Amino acid sequence: MCSQYCISLADVKKAHCDIEDLVHVTPILTSSILNQLAGRKLFFKCEFFQKTGSFKIRGALNAIWNLTSSTSGDGKKPKAVVTHSSGNHGQALSYAARLKGIPAYVVVPRTAPSCKKSAIQGYGAAIIDCEPSDESRTTVAARIVKQTEGTMVHPNQSPAVMAGHGTIALEVLEQVPMVDALVVPVGGGGMISGIAVTVKALRPEVKVYAAEPCNADDCFQSKLKGELTPNPSPPVTIADGVKSSIGPNTWSIIRDLVDEVFTVTEDEIKHATQLVWERMKILIEPTAAVGVAAVLGDRFQKVVPAALDVCVVLSGGNVDLTSLRWLKQPEREEAQHPLN
Amino acid sequence: MCSQYCISLADVKKAHCDIEDLVHVTPILTSSILNQLAGRKLFFKCEFFQKTGSFKIRGALNAIWNLTSSTSGDGKKPKAVVTHSSGNHGQALSYAARLKGIPAYVVVPRTAPSCKKSAIQGYGAAIIDCEPSDESRTTVAARIVKQTEGTMVHPNQSPAVMAGHGTIALEVLEQVPMVDALVVPVGGGGMISGIAVTVKALRPEVKVYAAEPCNADDCFQSKLKGELTPNPSPPVTIADGVKSSIGPNTWSIIRDLVDEVFTVTEDEIKHATQLVWERMKILIEPTAAVGVAAVLGDRFQKVVPAALDVCVVLSGGNVDLTSLRWLKQPEREEAQHPLN
Repeated sequence: MCSQYCISLADVKKAHCDIEDLVHVTPILTSSILNQLAGRKLFFKCEFFQKTGSFKIRGALNAIWNLTSSTSGDGKKPKAVVTHSSGNHGQALSYAARLKGIPAYVVVPRTAPSCKKSAIQGYGAAIIDCEPSDESRTTVAARIVKQTEGTMVHPNQSPAVMAGHGTIALEVLEQVPMVDALVVPVGGGGMISGIAVTVKALRPEVKVYAAEPCNADDCFQSKLKGELTPNPSPPVTIADGVKSSIGPNTWSIIRDLVDEVFTVTEDEIKHATQLVWERMKILIEPTAAVGVAAVLGDRFQKVVPAALDVCVVLSGGNVDLTSLRWLKQPEREEAQHPLN
Repeated sequence: MCSQYCISLADVKKAHCDIEDLVHVTPILTSSILNQLAGRKLFFKCEFFQKTGSFKIRGALNAIWNLTSSTSGDGKKPKAVVTHSSGNHGQALSYAARLKGIPAYVVVPRTAPSCKKSAIQGYGAAIIDCEPSDESRTTVAARIVKQTEGTMVHPNQSPAVMAGHGTIALEVLEQVPMVDALVVPVGGGGMISGIAVTVKALRPEVKVYAAEPCNADDCFQSKLKGELTPNPSPPVTIADGVKSSIGPNTWSIIRDLVDEVFTVTEDEIKHATQLVWERMKILIEPTAAVGVAAVLGDRFQKVVPAALDVCVVLSGGNVDLTSLRWLKQPEREEAQHPLN
């Protein structure tokens, strides 16, 4: 059914074979408190425990393996790989490139969290700063490709990257066989495209929902208008991993195979992040809380029947701990007990 | 071999039967980065995932079940239970008491993190403030026992509490059969006593190491002098869960069955906390990082042979996220690349 798209289930299955020894099968966590709040059973797919701290390693490894394998690519090692990334794809590509001894150049918006930049450099890649806009990213990356005679690995429009991310769905369908729906944060749409192609091929009755910030709602707008509608200006959101707009490769899949898009406010993202930290004791990044915020929101309760078992993908955990000034003091009723 | 102490392996096994349906078998996590830093294989026992956010629920449940069962107690429900606690035991006892419909009163140092106080109140217990000293805790708790005609459940000297905590060791020996040593943070010593009695009865060759802040080193001083030596004044440490001194019941076990005590500085605790957060993506409280700091310290490397597989108990995750001003900015080398 998916032959009209740039990836198919076969690509995802091949990716799974190629990368399975190099990535973690991340665990599923549950939380009775979050279940109560959501009014349903939630299953959290813990990609923040993944190598390099996010799901992005799946796509990056698959892309690098495709470039260097004799069947998929021309079998020659590329001179360099280049990408632009708000951070997690950059880390992942750096890690994957180093495994094959390929120099990596990562174009990063100068506003990205410093912990993400440090990690990219820690994996041995060179960082090239750009402005925080889709246009600047693209222009600077194209310049670096030319200068290095390297190969561009797009963070979300590369078919190999999308297929690599689809392996998340293969694991979820195995780990949570009763799952009724998956909720996936959307930036450029690489992860949800891989997941949607996989889920709709194997279990078409399972819903695939997108979650994105109101402040970066290009996916929602695109679905509403029925045509690819990028964010008109660089989005301002704490969910720095989903500032990118979806692109042509991911749009066609999202258009046809994603059942609904839920948007969430900045306050909802912050609340969900802090809730997961305090109640589940896991350190997700705000981007990963976008899906959590969605399932806790009013519209989700209205649209999605309460009985359904929902898997929320917690996409990454590369959070800058020094930038937490928005955290709210827990409420404490003063003890008014007569014995005090 | 343990008949001379206030608890034996039989008590721990009975506790395990009584509480196993009420607590989580917490997972063991590993981290290749932490292994590299420690120069050995580390197995992290994740008690921060435990109900109420710390291991304390094990002892609290066992104490409440002992008080209300017809074989262990007199079978009558106590009028109230009272305890003093820096927070986690208070939360745990409140939760356990509520399960049996018993009113709970928790004496808390007024300096304890507000998130811990909120959680105690959230479980329906009354909070009674005291000064942050062993003496004030004891005096105030005794007054509340009298006023409520309640029963005191000491956070670490109660044999039922100690036996409940020993169930951690039963799980670790099952989950990590090749374990050579356990590293356990020590405040009042309830957890390490239960663990030491269990480990030395079942696998006497396995080492049990204590870890505590230099600023609250009563366990270290007691072992050094061969006699119970409480902290001379209220300790000042970020590890608020281990400010209590060990007491007579835990001292005799620690004296005989704990192989070594490792002390760590405040900076080492902060570093270990941040390291675990950033690298393992799990939200432990600083108290839980005391054992991590110990295994990363120079003295541990000298005393404990490098080949040994070590289990570190991560005791809890009830951290006040709004009090994180000590976090260090990650280092970033500015990209000096010619293409930039």
